[in-house]
Amino acid sequence: MLFNASDIANMEQRYRANFINALSGFKSANLIGTISKSGQHNLAIVSSVFHIGAHPPLMGMIMRPHTVPRDTLQNIKDTGVYTINHVGIEHTREAHHTSARFAEGVSEFEHVGLTPWLSDSHPAPFVAESRLKIGLELQDIQIIALNNTELVIGQVVEVNVDKHAVAADGYIAIDRLNTAAVSGLDAYHSTNTIGRYQYAKADAPVQNIE
Amino acid sequence: MLFNASDIANMEQRYRANFINALSGFKSANLIGTISKSGQHNLAIVSSVFHIGAHPPLMGMIMRPHTVPRDTLQNIKDTGVYTINHVGIEHTREAHHTSARFAEGVSEFEHVGLTPWLSDSHPAPFVAESRLKIGLELQDIQIIALNNTELVIGQVVEVNVDKHAVAADGYIAIDRLNTAAVSGLDAYHSTNTIGRYQYAKADAPVQNIE
Repeated sequence: MLFNASDIANMEQRYRANFINALSGFKSANLIGTISKSGQHNLAIVSSVFHIGAHPPLMGMIMRPHTVPRDTLQNIKDTGVYTINHVGIEHTREAHHTSARFAEGVSEFEHVGLTPWLSDSHPAPFVAESRLKIGLELQDIQIIALNNTELVIGQVVEVNVDKHAVAADGYIAIDRLNTAAVSGLDAYHSTNTIGRYQYAKADAPVQNIE
Repeated sequence: MLFNASDIANMEQRYRANFINALSGFKSANLIGTISKSGQHNLAIVSSVFHIGAHPPLMGMIMRPHTVPRDTLQNIKDTGVYTINHVGIEHTREAHHTSARFAEGVSEFEHVGLTPWLSDSHPAPFVAESRLKIGLELQDIQIIALNNTELVIGQVVEVNVDKHAVAADGYIAIDRLNTAAVSGLDAYHSTNTIGRYQYAKADAPVQNIE
């Protein structure tokens, strides 16, 4: 079935939001932990975290200034630090709950039933239940002028992960950590591994990494 | 296990690439179809496609100018159009093969065994085997100065998708299209749906969408 530009422009707003949000494919499921200037913890689910580069280790995420994670964005701007925590398939409901509009002064951690965890070396709170926890320092915020969203870029300064999930070549088997995937605005998924493939060569078939 | 900033900086280059690429969580698996000024088709797998906004419908992807999809980036700059095609779990091997360094003048479509498909209204080639095909027009390219990658932003101008996968509220059940997910640099995954959750409210438990 073909949807053209005019069909998309004429979609009802919520219909279009569901439709367009599903187009990119599977998305990461992460909880962003921050702390306000006054010391209040904040937690928000974000499905827009993505890889930017390995050296330096940079991660990006798209933030909409006028939607729910606005406290998250303000805290990052104020303190320069935040955490990214994988959402496990057993915690998707609690994670989704963080997207509600809580009153100021309410910690989403307590309200949804997740536990803040502080490392010795990073001021922003991690999620204790998360099996892959990343501490970041803000490097840059770029405005995307086309729709006034903000691309937040941070450098990874600490990673806490189950040792058994890290392969000999550095790959982290995030399926073995039960990390969830997201599609659209509100769908959560578990995963099964098809395989890892070796670096592809033009004139040879693709080989599995055993 | 804790990896701090110094541990990460001291990782062997390939180890670090595997490790850092896995941190963001599950990623989208998409084939980017382009056409050169001289009419040559090009196809490249990219795991960095992400949602930027629904209205206008904008999608982004991070391109590294000096790695394999450089023809893709050049074609997009030259022609202003490209396609994004979901990779199905049955075509991950062919899709991964597009990341090899093919000689100039070789069409990755033919070489890896995928079929170009042209719509009446879009000049860039789609992937016939893909069950969700998106036509885009380039809107902007923003340089990420921190590591000289390029954020390519396109507007969705056409979507071809199996009608049965589009729910009444606009959500596209991409798991029913057998869309694959990626982790790290080279791991491919199928998915199982846990559920869709309703818009979250502060003082009520999260409810499933039936």
